[in-house]
Amino acid sequence: MNNNHTAVEVIKAKRDGQELSDEQIAWIVDAYTKGAVDPEQMSALAMAIFLRGMNRREIAQWTQAMIDSGIRLDFSALGKPTVDKHSTGGVGDMITLTLAPLVASFGVAVPQLSGRGLGHTGGTLDKLESIPGFNCSLSDRQILAQLQAVGVVVCAAGDNLAPADKKLYALRDVTATVESIPLIASSIMSKKIAEGTGALILDVKVGSGAFMKSRAQARELAQTMVDLGKDAGVNTVALLTNMDTPLGYAAGNAIEVQQALDVLNGGGPSDIVELTISLAAEMLQAAGRPASEPEIRAALSNGQALIKWREMVAAQGGDPDAPLPVAKHRRDVLAPKSGVLTRLDALAVGVAAWRLGAGRERQGDPVQAGTGVLMHAKPGDAVTAGQPLFTLLTDTPDRFAAAQATLENAYDIGNESNHNPQNLICERIS
Amino acid sequence: MNNNHTAVEVIKAKRDGQELSDEQIAWIVDAYTKGAVDPEQMSALAMAIFLRGMNRREIAQWTQAMIDSGIRLDFSALGKPTVDKHSTGGVGDMITLTLAPLVASFGVAVPQLSGRGLGHTGGTLDKLESIPGFNCSLSDRQILAQLQAVGVVVCAAGDNLAPADKKLYALRDVTATVESIPLIASSIMSKKIAEGTGALILDVKVGSGAFMKSRAQARELAQTMVDLGKDAGVNTVALLTNMDTPLGYAAGNAIEVQQALDVLNGGGPSDIVELTISLAAEMLQAAGRPASEPEIRAALSNGQALIKWREMVAAQGGDPDAPLPVAKHRRDVLAPKSGVLTRLDALAVGVAAWRLGAGRERQGDPVQAGTGVLMHAKPGDAVTAGQPLFTLLTDTPDRFAAAQATLENAYDIGNESNHNPQNLICERIS
Repeated sequence: MNNNHTAVEVIKAKRDGQELSDEQIAWIVDAYTKGAVDPEQMSALAMAIFLRGMNRREIAQWTQAMIDSGIRLDFSALGKPTVDKHSTGGVGDMITLTLAPLVASFGVAVPQLSGRGLGHTGGTLDKLESIPGFNCSLSDRQILAQLQAVGVVVCAAGDNLAPADKKLYALRDVTATVESIPLIASSIMSKKIAEGTGALILDVKVGSGAFMKSRAQARELAQTMVDLGKDAGVNTVALLTNMDTPLGYAAGNAIEVQQALDVLNGGGPSDIVELTISLAAEMLQAAGRPASEPEIRAALSNGQALIKWREMVAAQGGDPDAPLPVAKHRRDVLAPKSGVLTRLDALAVGVAAWRLGAGRERQGDPVQAGTGVLMHAKPGDAVTAGQPLFTLLTDTPDRFAAAQATLENAYDIGNESNHNPQNLICERIS
Repeated sequence: MNNNHTAVEVIKAKRDGQELSDEQIAWIVDAYTKGAVDPEQMSALAMAIFLRGMNRREIAQWTQAMIDSGIRLDFSALGKPTVDKHSTGGVGDMITLTLAPLVASFGVAVPQLSGRGLGHTGGTLDKLESIPGFNCSLSDRQILAQLQAVGVVVCAAGDNLAPADKKLYALRDVTATVESIPLIASSIMSKKIAEGTGALILDVKVGSGAFMKSRAQARELAQTMVDLGKDAGVNTVALLTNMDTPLGYAAGNAIEVQQALDVLNGGGPSDIVELTISLAAEMLQAAGRPASEPEIRAALSNGQALIKWREMVAAQGGDPDAPLPVAKHRRDVLAPKSGVLTRLDALAVGVAAWRLGAGRERQGDPVQAGTGVLMHAKPGDAVTAGQPLFTLLTDTPDRFAAAQATLENAYDIGNESNHNPQNLICERIS
């Protein structure tokens, strides 16, 4: 039997709703990664998985096969617990920037391997690279050394971590097979397990600005990932958090770094502060170094977390005191009437920031460091006609019109009774 | 928007169970044929179509898009009606060889563009090529000239007929997306409509040796193709015919040609004679030149069809008097006990013939002209222990064992009460 024939048998089985065996999964992921199974065969299988699903055993095996395509890091030499956080992506979600140094300031190592933005959700690495000199490309040896010396590192995952996932993700992107819970869960968890963290907190976003639009979907994804983590010996907990409205008051790159600095200096938007503290409590608990909420809050206000941030930035070649890049052009969008802001749509704000130049359409495109959307009111806030609702920032002013059009239906102004406050943290899954 | 993005939108729509618009179908089939849409995108779409289906309008548009990828032949200059037959493929199905000259002998033109065998079902062209000198590769001009002069031609479809179908079929073959009724129907009908025939009779096989295992599937495929034909102005009728048991007493190439000659000489297996006559009656009716059953039967027994056969063979470079190739080795398989043959499985016989060298595993492989399986009894016949049930023929005797193993469970010998005679022609769909 040649590879073609075997691949057809595997595709057929899933197409017809059967379970794939461990051997079939290990074989096809390996053969695809090596080029012995063609992309058109893998995309047919991905579509069959999309429409037929996979059970817990199949997802675990699929994840394992992707881990086995590369190396697995080992932090046991550190002599301290490790914990990482993963967010499924939202608008204004710069929580990694506040959270990683905060948790590390309690003596827990935080190996935070992150990604770049694609589409309307920003990428942590794009944000950090707006800091002059900051280097996101570290070798495995450099990662280990920085974890030893500083206790926290935020950088790109190396090409040797789950390379099968990288190849498969690029294929899914062009074949409409991205939004599959088994494939999303195994993609995220293969990288996190290969990364070698001892514990993992998942921030699964739900709402208009998130990948998962419904609570049920988000819960299924969260539970799938928690199961995968536990099966692989990683202490994993997930929080479902609201993403109907952007986090904080900024969607962009440098402007989100500035907001993180506000939080690390003891101020900043209350939603970001609260989410940072909740996730930090989960991370410290999962790492076996629990801290109380007042202790964690104090670490933000007394400069303990800020010191760790400055150490991290400096260790990665950045200048913590350098001024952040500023966009060349700005334009205010004014409130058309007075009242209470009752809705502010995360997706629209994310798309507007993306259109202004903060994000990329294609992998490899450059991003504009200073651009994005500043918000001057959040749901529940009173607004006055003629007052700025948004400030749009860009280096390429021909983009203002598209961003402004995107924001036109992004909000409602009504009265207090129209405002339904939503909980930021919806659910905990362990 | 680039092609990638548009292709993803089309895949997504079908993936989510939506109808594709005429524009979407025309665009993606055209772009795929030209190489502007990648094979991995088309295979994801094929799998989505496999699992989500297409409605009558979508199938008609998909078929039209494949026709539009090439040229459409025009036989109007002939000045006589044209009619073609298509069989979905079975074991021992050499009916084209008897049927085409028979129908042509009534003054109707029969442009029979045929295919080669793949897997366990034989190909008409492979059978004809066992005749010394026979040429299956004719130009469009040669086809028209032969239809004018002789009235019948059996040859390969040119590369300019529905090239999109050719490209798509090769992709479906390696991505487990062959067995989809919308895709099968549009593949068959795009070629037949592009071929330019005025009428078309479909022989849709149902049973173990056929593509369609159940009556319901076969009926759906037949109805889909009849609808497509009518929508395109081709007078189309389908017969559902039984393929649990092979047709006739031979499965191979030259041995099937010999059997066709027996029929054209007024003898031959009764099932082949009956099916030939039924299909001929349908073809002559659909072409507007109806003939009675006795008239058609007479054309087989009085040499009228045989003359047409000899003219056709000679016109295509073959020698109608040359001896047919004979396999180098033969082995009998004996009946293990006496009784009545109550079952003879078409699939097993087809696979055995294929293993002996009559078929090919891959497009482009050669076939052995003289090889195959001769059957000495059909269901309902009495057999005696020690009497030959099958004679296996091959040029490569190391294949005997595999063929013999395939036939081991291919039949049952019981008593008369175990034998359930089945109708050869199950249903007529128009």
